[in-house]
Amino acid sequence: MQDGYFIAFEGGDGAGKSTQVALLAEVLRAAGREVVITRQPGGTELGRQLRELVLHGAAMAPRAEVLIFAADKAQHVAEVIAPALALGQVVVTDRYTDSSVAYQGAARDLGAEAVHELQMWAVGHLVPDLTIVVDLPAAEGRRRRGDVHDRLESEADGFHDAVRAHFGAMARGNPQRYLLVDGLASPEQIHATVLERLQVEGVLS
Amino acid sequence: MQDGYFIAFEGGDGAGKSTQVALLAEVLRAAGREVVITRQPGGTELGRQLRELVLHGAAMAPRAEVLIFAADKAQHVAEVIAPALALGQVVVTDRYTDSSVAYQGAARDLGAEAVHELQMWAVGHLVPDLTIVVDLPAAEGRRRRGDVHDRLESEADGFHDAVRAHFGAMARGNPQRYLLVDGLASPEQIHATVLERLQVEGVLS
Repeated sequence: MQDGYFIAFEGGDGAGKSTQVALLAEVLRAAGREVVITRQPGGTELGRQLRELVLHGAAMAPRAEVLIFAADKAQHVAEVIAPALALGQVVVTDRYTDSSVAYQGAARDLGAEAVHELQMWAVGHLVPDLTIVVDLPAAEGRRRRGDVHDRLESEADGFHDAVRAHFGAMARGNPQRYLLVDGLASPEQIHATVLERLQVEGVLS
Repeated sequence: MQDGYFIAFEGGDGAGKSTQVALLAEVLRAAGREVVITRQPGGTELGRQLRELVLHGAAMAPRAEVLIFAADKAQHVAEVIAPALALGQVVVTDRYTDSSVAYQGAARDLGAEAVHELQMWAVGHLVPDLTIVVDLPAAEGRRRRGDVHDRLESEADGFHDAVRAHFGAMARGNPQRYLLVDGLASPEQIHATVLERLQVEGVLS
């Protein structure tokens, strides 16, 4: 049996992560790998209930929001990600712990380090083999999202710029575990960059 | 304006905590204090939604449950407890962080210390001025609860014994911040013991 491999896509809203997840899954399946596509928040039934609370429920304290996102991750790892990896499957998730660190920790003054530690406890220290950060200027993300808003997406550009800076810093600080790609490139170009890296990693031949 | 004072009741299910909360609030109000009675989980609208998920929702991973209880506490402190204390009121809560440490940390093998740190982050390190632990053997708690069950209450006596041992250890380890009372005593006797301690603390004259 092949070893499992865990890939996370991170980046701002509108960066094109879900398109990349779908394109990558197609290639991996064509190469004979079993692939599990998932997302955070909302990758489990509990996660969907929690996501509903955060996005459309009553206003909540910043620490409560961080903890609810962490609970979603704990369930996601226990119910979906860890079992799939144990079966030798490739797991591709649209967002993982770095989003919480970037959105809640860095951008909202709760302390990126404390939020990171909490996330790591939630996921039992399960870190992706490769995290792909799709980098996009805040204004371009807003343009692409158009008029659809929820509470997080309607934050000002300054918030999204801070989130973007945090994603970039994480990726540049650990190139072995991260791939930083330009979200202004075409979906096909981004996809090619991702495939190239997975060939280097030996996941695709 | 008087200083706020923060009292938590802890102990197993069926120990008589809610009776004691009500008796104490009556005395404090008769003494001219403004009193806020509250509870965890479920002291806020968000908390009630989260409590519903934990007690009656789908099965969830142990770490997810810990994080959801922590989110309830974060909201409870931000929305109810801290504002009341800032106004000089007395806050009496039926359960606080020690319940999570005892139920999830000690009894479920997630590590009492890690769970304690997480709770402290959730509540911004707001610790009660006095925590009253009502001590009761597990079998007596079960007898008193009768046939009403939810997921936590239907755990075996061994689980409740471990919880009880943990509450007892916390109380004995820090007598300045804790009062350990015998739950087999009558409600009137327990109430008298609580009042005596609050006179020593200068909260009641």
